[in-house]
Amino acid sequence: MFVSESLNINEQGHLTIGGLDTTALAAEFGTPVIVYDWDGVRRNCRRFTESIDRYYGGNGRVLYASKAFCCLASCRLAHEENMGLDVVSGGEIYTALAAGFPADRLYFHGNNKSEQELAYALDAGVGAIVCDNPEELARISRIATETGKTARLFLRIKPGIDAHTHDFIRTGQIDSKFGFALETGEAMKQVKKTLASPGVELVGLHCHIGSQIFDTKPFVEAASVMMGFIADIRDETGYVVPQLDLGGGFGIRYTEKDDPIPLDRYMEPVSDEVRRVAKERSVPVPFILLEPGRSIVGAEAVTLYTVGSVKEIPGVRTYVGIDGGMGDNPRYILYQAGYTVLNAAKAGEPADDVVTVAGKCCESGDLIQENAPIRRVEAGDVLAVLSTGAYCYSMASNYNRIPRPAVVKVEGGQASVIIRRETPEQLIENDV
Amino acid sequence: MFVSESLNINEQGHLTIGGLDTTALAAEFGTPVIVYDWDGVRRNCRRFTESIDRYYGGNGRVLYASKAFCCLASCRLAHEENMGLDVVSGGEIYTALAAGFPADRLYFHGNNKSEQELAYALDAGVGAIVCDNPEELARISRIATETGKTARLFLRIKPGIDAHTHDFIRTGQIDSKFGFALETGEAMKQVKKTLASPGVELVGLHCHIGSQIFDTKPFVEAASVMMGFIADIRDETGYVVPQLDLGGGFGIRYTEKDDPIPLDRYMEPVSDEVRRVAKERSVPVPFILLEPGRSIVGAEAVTLYTVGSVKEIPGVRTYVGIDGGMGDNPRYILYQAGYTVLNAAKAGEPADDVVTVAGKCCESGDLIQENAPIRRVEAGDVLAVLSTGAYCYSMASNYNRIPRPAVVKVEGGQASVIIRRETPEQLIENDV
Repeated sequence: MFVSESLNINEQGHLTIGGLDTTALAAEFGTPVIVYDWDGVRRNCRRFTESIDRYYGGNGRVLYASKAFCCLASCRLAHEENMGLDVVSGGEIYTALAAGFPADRLYFHGNNKSEQELAYALDAGVGAIVCDNPEELARISRIATETGKTARLFLRIKPGIDAHTHDFIRTGQIDSKFGFALETGEAMKQVKKTLASPGVELVGLHCHIGSQIFDTKPFVEAASVMMGFIADIRDETGYVVPQLDLGGGFGIRYTEKDDPIPLDRYMEPVSDEVRRVAKERSVPVPFILLEPGRSIVGAEAVTLYTVGSVKEIPGVRTYVGIDGGMGDNPRYILYQAGYTVLNAAKAGEPADDVVTVAGKCCESGDLIQENAPIRRVEAGDVLAVLSTGAYCYSMASNYNRIPRPAVVKVEGGQASVIIRRETPEQLIENDV
Repeated sequence: MFVSESLNINEQGHLTIGGLDTTALAAEFGTPVIVYDWDGVRRNCRRFTESIDRYYGGNGRVLYASKAFCCLASCRLAHEENMGLDVVSGGEIYTALAAGFPADRLYFHGNNKSEQELAYALDAGVGAIVCDNPEELARISRIATETGKTARLFLRIKPGIDAHTHDFIRTGQIDSKFGFALETGEAMKQVKKTLASPGVELVGLHCHIGSQIFDTKPFVEAASVMMGFIADIRDETGYVVPQLDLGGGFGIRYTEKDDPIPLDRYMEPVSDEVRRVAKERSVPVPFILLEPGRSIVGAEAVTLYTVGSVKEIPGVRTYVGIDGGMGDNPRYILYQAGYTVLNAAKAGEPADDVVTVAGKCCESGDLIQENAPIRRVEAGDVLAVLSTGAYCYSMASNYNRIPRPAVVKVEGGQASVIIRRETPEQLIENDV
C-alpha cells in the first residue's frame, strides 16, 4: 500500500515513519516538517554500494547526488557510508567540507561553474571536476596552470539516449544544455583537446540519461555507448580512459502507479554489458561511478502539514488548505508531480474523499496535488505527503516570506532535527 | 524598444538602468545581481495614488502587494509613498514592522493563515485581515474574543470573473482555492456569519480577478459585480460595507508582445462604474483599495548575469550558460514566462542571434528563455534579463545550494545594495 519500507501503520491506525507516529512527530516538531527515515536512507546507500561489490567486484563507487537533498547531516551520512559526493556548486562543496567530507571524494558537476567556484574546487582538492564545455576546459586549464595544480577531469558526454521521461528532465539527447555530443564528433574533439591541455588529467567520462527511469535498459544502452566511446578514444589517441560515471536517474515510487526496480538490480545488467564491450573491444574494464540522489532519499521522507481549512465547492472540487505548499515543495507546480497524500491519523482506513491539496501561498497554482484520494480530513488534522525526500527542501524558497520548514531524521527509533526551522529574523538578515 | 522608462542606452551603446551603466553595475556589485530603478518604482506608486486622487477624489488607498518583492527597503518605500501593504504571511508582517511600517496600514491576506500568524497579526494591530474561509472566520473570532480585540475583516469574494490569463494565475472563477463564491450563495452566507460573529467587524469586501491583465474591462466588471453585492448585502441585512478592495493584476511588459495599459488609466473607468452602481442601487460609494505589486516593481528591474559558455549545437540551438538561473528566477520553468534578454554592452545593436539562455542548476529545465533574439554574446559578457522586478527574488531558492543574488537600487543616480548577496556560511546556518 505504501511507497517505501520506511512507512507503516501503528495500532492507533496512525502513519509511522521509522517506527515513530507521524502525528506525534508533528506535535513535537511543529508543521510543516519534513521527516526522514535515516535508517531507510542508509539502507538505500548500502543497496547501491553492495550491488557494485556483488556484480562488479567492488571496482566502483557510489556518489550521492547532493542536489536531491544537501545539508551537513546528508554529507556526514554519505561519508559514513563510504560514498563519494556529486556536488554542483561552490555552496555544495562548502557544505560538504563543513561536514568534514573528504575533498578527494567530491565530484564537481554543472554546466556553468564560475571562475571563483573552479578556483575554490581546485584549492580544496576535489576528486574530480566534470567538465561541461570548451570555455570551461580552457578556464580549468588556466587556473590549474596558474596555481601549479593538476585538475582531474571527467568530460560530460551526451550519449544520445532518450530515457523517455518528462521533457524537463531528459538530458541524454543532443538538445541539452549539458555536455558534449557524441554523434557530432564534438565529444571526440573535446577529448583530444583535454589530452592536449596543460594542468588537466582526463580521468573519466560522464553521462546522465534522465530522471525517474523505471527500466534497466537505457542504463545498459548508455553503458554500451560509453564503453564504445572509451574504445574509440583508445583507437584514435591511444589513451585509455580509466573511469566511467554512468550518472543517476533511478526511479522511485511517488504513487501506486510508479513501479520502481529494486535499487540493487541496476548493476547486474550494466556490469555484464560493460564487461562484454570491454572484452569485445579489448579495453580494460573501467572504475564505475553511479550517482543516485533521488533514489537514496526520495521515498524515505514524508512532509507533515496541518490542515487549516477544507473548502468544498459543490460540483467542482474540494480544496484542503495546508500550512505549507510550493515554498517547501514546488514539484507539483513545476512538474505536476504525482504524490500520495494521507490523513496521518487515519492512514489505515480506505480513502473516502478526493481532494486538491492547496498550499498557503498567495498563488492559485500553489497546489501539492490535485484530485488525490484521501481519508476525509478536517481542520486541525495532520496531512502527510509521501516521498518528499528529494528535490523538496533543496528547492525550497521563501516565497511570501514563509520560513522554510524544519527537517527531522528518525534513526534507531529516535527523532532529531537535522535542519532547524527558519526564523522570521532570518528572513530579513540580508535586507539593508 | 525597451520595456520601461527606467532603461536606456548610453554613448558606449551599453544598457543603462536609472541612468547607470549596467556593465559597470555588474562589475561593481558582481553577478548575478538584480538592479531596480527605484525612482521608476516610486513613479509607478504615484501613478496609482494620483489616479485615485484624480478619478475618485482620493477616497481610496493603494496597497503595495508585498509578494511581488518584499524587503525592508520595499516596505520603507511604500511607507514613504503613503501606501498600505498587502501582506500574506507572518514573515511579511514581520518584515513590514521591522521596516517601521505602520501596522494599521497592513492588510493580511492568504487562504490559510495559521493560528500563530493570526494571533501575531491581531497583536500587532494590522489594519485588516482578509478572511478566506469559514474555519478562518471562526479562528479569528475566537482569538479576538480571547484577547479582547476586535478584528477588522474583509471577506475574499470570488466574483466569477475570468480574466483570460494563464491557468495558474486565474483566480476570479469559482474553482479557486481562494475565497467565497458569489454565485452559490456562499458569500452571502459568510457575510451574515461574519456580521453575527463576536470579536470581528466587517469593514470590506475583497476580490482579485487574475494576473497580467491587459484590459480595463475585467476590472470594471469586477467593480460592478462587487458593488452589486454590496447593495445586495445592504438589502438583505441592512449593513453597508464601507470598503471595497479590487485587488491587483495589472499587466506589465515583459517582451514587445505585451501591450500594457498606462497604470493611471485603470481608475477612471472603474471609478465611473463604482459611482454608477452606487447611484443605481442607492448605496454609498465605498473607500476603494487597489493592490498592485507586479505593475509597481516588475518592469523597473533587470537581472544582470555573466555569460560562462556559449554552446552551439549545429542544427538544434545555441545555449548561453549564465551564472544564475531558476534559483534567482523560476518564472520560466514555472510558467514559460516571456522575457527580453540583451547583451548589456551591445544593447543598441540589433539582434543577430537566437539563443536559449540556460541557468547553472543541474536541471535540464533550468532555462531563463528559449529562442530569444539577442546581439551575439560570448563568455565573459554581461547578459541582461529585463522586467525581473516581480516574483523573481521573492520566489528565489537555494536550489543546488547556490546563494541568492544581491539586490541593488538606483536612486537619484546612486546605486546601493538593498539586499546583500547570501554567503556560503548562511547556507549551512540552520544545518545541525
